[in-house]
Amino acid sequence: MISVDAMGGDNGPVAVVAGLADSARQNPGVSYILHGPDAELSRLVARQPALAGRCTIRHAAGVVAMTDKPSHVMRHGGGTSMWSAIDSVRAGEAAAAVSCGNTGALMALSMIRLRKLPGVNRPAIAALWPSRNPGGFNLILDVGADVRAEATDLTQFALMGASYARNGLGIARPRIGLLNVGTEDHKGRAELKQAHEMMPATAEAGDFDYVGFVEGSDLPSARVDVLVTDGFTGNVAIKTGEGTAKLISDFLREAFNVGILSRFAALLALGSLGRLKRRIDPRRQNGGVFLGLNGTVVKSHGSADATGVSAAIRLAITLARSGFQDRLAARVASAARARQDAAGDGETGGPSE
Amino acid sequence: MISVDAMGGDNGPVAVVAGLADSARQNPGVSYILHGPDAELSRLVARQPALAGRCTIRHAAGVVAMTDKPSHVMRHGGGTSMWSAIDSVRAGEAAAAVSCGNTGALMALSMIRLRKLPGVNRPAIAALWPSRNPGGFNLILDVGADVRAEATDLTQFALMGASYARNGLGIARPRIGLLNVGTEDHKGRAELKQAHEMMPATAEAGDFDYVGFVEGSDLPSARVDVLVTDGFTGNVAIKTGEGTAKLISDFLREAFNVGILSRFAALLALGSLGRLKRRIDPRRQNGGVFLGLNGTVVKSHGSADATGVSAAIRLAITLARSGFQDRLAARVASAARARQDAAGDGETGGPSE
Repeated sequence: MISVDAMGGDNGPVAVVAGLADSARQNPGVSYILHGPDAELSRLVARQPALAGRCTIRHAAGVVAMTDKPSHVMRHGGGTSMWSAIDSVRAGEAAAAVSCGNTGALMALSMIRLRKLPGVNRPAIAALWPSRNPGGFNLILDVGADVRAEATDLTQFALMGASYARNGLGIARPRIGLLNVGTEDHKGRAELKQAHEMMPATAEAGDFDYVGFVEGSDLPSARVDVLVTDGFTGNVAIKTGEGTAKLISDFLREAFNVGILSRFAALLALGSLGRLKRRIDPRRQNGGVFLGLNGTVVKSHGSADATGVSAAIRLAITLARSGFQDRLAARVASAARARQDAAGDGETGGPSE
Repeated sequence: MISVDAMGGDNGPVAVVAGLADSARQNPGVSYILHGPDAELSRLVARQPALAGRCTIRHAAGVVAMTDKPSHVMRHGGGTSMWSAIDSVRAGEAAAAVSCGNTGALMALSMIRLRKLPGVNRPAIAALWPSRNPGGFNLILDVGADVRAEATDLTQFALMGASYARNGLGIARPRIGLLNVGTEDHKGRAELKQAHEMMPATAEAGDFDYVGFVEGSDLPSARVDVLVTDGFTGNVAIKTGEGTAKLISDFLREAFNVGILSRFAALLALGSLGRLKRRIDPRRQNGGVFLGLNGTVVKSHGSADATGVSAAIRLAITLARSGFQDRLAARVASAARARQDAAGDGETGGPSE
């Protein structure tokens, strides 16, 4: 069972219900709880044959707007579709929640309703990014749960990112790097140097390979699977990457619009350009995953269309089926124990994940 | 007169001397001082007719390696070509210095040999980035002089970036934004909120428009000319952008290599792709400019070929001709006075720039 917030996205409940129907067609065994205004949603759902008998509507009259401050939503968010969607996970009805709404509010509500996992200081948001790796994507976290991270937070991000990569991307032993301004040991801020020293022990507890410092240019590279950074840097990095990709695609379109020969070439190249577009289409890897809470929450792009919403729900289904949430919790708890026992024998075998 | 460090780049003095010859052909009135091992450079220069009578070789036996730590170079860098190149600016022989060498070492030597401008706390490195603006480029600083910046540093970066944009890019009244994780006032770290409040007064002193917080996606956007950030975030941002551009260009090449039709389309599209490539070719906007010192230093990409070296020298020539260095110094000094007088009448007319 997946819990879906119908409201708060740029394209409204129409896009969400269309995405839900797409998801239902692709995932025959899955059913959904859809949160939002009953009358409007009933009408939209009734038009989708794929959702017949598979979608329960949970009435919530309120909507969290994109401009609402997280602190305001924490105090007055009861009765909103976002709150209701998270509470389905809290109550154990649904294995994961998906929302296209306000990121800050979604994180704030997830924190107060689901609470942090024991042993986690700062939750993080993990995002996928197109890469040269065989699976086609790298993982980066935090991309905006918080604007700062201490050394111990960064090691927890590594543990959580490794769990996600293993269960969500099927990478048995993820390679993890710390995002810095150079790869030499003497580079970067104090908390990075400290985390760099703590990483080998964390890697043993978390069953991943620590590859050391990586740079911004490694976000799409094949030398790493997971990039660990604070939420400020991670947010700027992925938005810069998105902006650059958009600039090049616009320039490319302009280049092909100059002269008859270019337009003819563009027609012939449609197949090639289509393949390229599918490879870097942000809708196909839609979904930031909140890590470090008692429950799985997937944040879809606010501007997601039906394809994007369906991709975000697919991610929630994959993570729910993998038992990711319990494994991540066990891994974090065992690493915390290992840290406490560090004065002991140094053996830190975690549970098999 | 431009001072050029022949050594320390990935492609050695061959690429630098070829770039110097290209620059000499394009800039008939300019002459050069070239720093490095006399015998080797004399042989290379003798092969370039364009350099006949226009290039003085200044012997320096030592070379700063890419792996040398800045602290080591500060203590033992005397006698290197990099030190010698900076000292030509210090002595007033040359209007600007250009080097393809180790960035950290170049900044460290520039700091101790040229000293900071009065009123500047942290120097910064400014880089150009392809954008949708009419001039084709935006400016971002700091991209790596230091890993942190306080609120007052960020306002000085804004002043220095405005001077560079005015004198180097010909933008009479630059629009300046503070890089953050969102555009709302409540977003970001404490020093950003503080700088945000100080910016309107700085904008008046610095004769620029403050557009508020901008995001990573604005690096190539037309809503801003100069993005201000700390050197850690700026470094990650431009390297992420470079990595993304490289990924897309590789994917594009692969896409056009699948099937006969695609290859034929690629042939027809050569013109279009060539135009695109020229528009985003990193060699054409090569050169990070060190701001906030008593002298102009341009850092070329370490991997620059002749075209790249020539572009970095062109940037140094442009800045030298515009009288940028004196104007920037006057602007920073006047802003510092304005800050001190802030309790006074609030009128902060700087020198006409």
